[in-house]
Amino acid sequence: MNISDKTIGRLSLYRRLLYRFTAEGRTNVYSHQIAAMSGATPAQVRRDLMVIGYSGSPNRGYRIDDLISSIGEFLDDPSGQNVTLVGVGNLGRAILAYFAGRRPKLAIVAAFDIVPDKVNRTIHGCHCYPMEEFPAIAKRENITVGILTVPADVAQSAAQMLAESGVRGILNFAPVVLTLPPTVYVQDVDMVMTLERVAYFARKNIPDMKRGTQL
Amino acid sequence: MNISDKTIGRLSLYRRLLYRFTAEGRTNVYSHQIAAMSGATPAQVRRDLMVIGYSGSPNRGYRIDDLISSIGEFLDDPSGQNVTLVGVGNLGRAILAYFAGRRPKLAIVAAFDIVPDKVNRTIHGCHCYPMEEFPAIAKRENITVGILTVPADVAQSAAQMLAESGVRGILNFAPVVLTLPPTVYVQDVDMVMTLERVAYFARKNIPDMKRGTQL
Repeated sequence: MNISDKTIGRLSLYRRLLYRFTAEGRTNVYSHQIAAMSGATPAQVRRDLMVIGYSGSPNRGYRIDDLISSIGEFLDDPSGQNVTLVGVGNLGRAILAYFAGRRPKLAIVAAFDIVPDKVNRTIHGCHCYPMEEFPAIAKRENITVGILTVPADVAQSAAQMLAESGVRGILNFAPVVLTLPPTVYVQDVDMVMTLERVAYFARKNIPDMKRGTQL
Repeated sequence: MNISDKTIGRLSLYRRLLYRFTAEGRTNVYSHQIAAMSGATPAQVRRDLMVIGYSGSPNRGYRIDDLISSIGEFLDDPSGQNVTLVGVGNLGRAILAYFAGRRPKLAIVAAFDIVPDKVNRTIHGCHCYPMEEFPAIAKRENITVGILTVPADVAQSAAQMLAESGVRGILNFAPVVLTLPPTVYVQDVDMVMTLERVAYFARKNIPDMKRGTQL
């Protein structure tokens, strides 16, 4: 089955909302309630839940705990996936702090940098190693996902090292279009470009304008 | 003329690439070279440059400095736009550090927080004010763009204060779907969701899979 980027994004958002409902003490939810919170239509929500094979009882609402488990079975690797972060500058540190303990099945298990006084220490709970140890540690820790927060001029070579060491998905914050084998999934996030786009539409102020899609 | 999110994103990316070419000492560029670096087709590049009314001489290539000016005239407000950042936690600080001095026409002129020991001081070159001063400072500084890096439970109320004080575009990092008047352009960036999506496709490892679109 070929699932689109957007479907995966919405399932991830639904789970996020369901965690919040649980925290509020709720046990059941209707598709129209998930829809209202996520910006999707109720029909879209029901279609997405059919995609993951969830057969709830839409008339009485879905059980929130069941739904969270079903989404997790679909989205997550049952044994977890190990993540690395390469480039421990301001943004890299912020991401380490932000992710610490947030998703046990998607944990940042090792960080890397080339600057001597950043390595061989623990930053926001994550050990930082020198870059040349990447291949060995990636293999030992079975790292398959990478977050790239290095400067533009070293992004391509760092990404190649990740790809050669078994990383199959890269979240790239460097303002560079990476050239990698098609077996590596790359998601670019360029915050300057994103802000430029927001500024453009803020100025144009088109009343019936669509929201930007979730990044 | 109704310009899409994607066109604006590509123009912003072309400019980013052109700055890099300039730094390398180049003066001219062909559409196919911009295309190769940006992941677009040469025809798409030429169409985008027509949209902004750029009439270069594609046979001898475009003059890079002219092209940078033309994109700037289209994308930027000639007198600049002032940006605010609300929520000076780890991510907020990283963004302040990252943007400092990077885009003079899109400067973060004021930061806000509610925590007493974060306010009335300068963080990465940006003064941090208490949240209750937002309406007055937004008016004084003519702030039209906001970056929201607050916790989920206060994001809606903070976004409303921004919208009521004249902000017309919001880059939202809080994991919340904001409800705002249609005159406010909202771009959501949820890093946990984005990483979940990268991890999913890293695991599925579909060889002919499309790249995620630029965020």
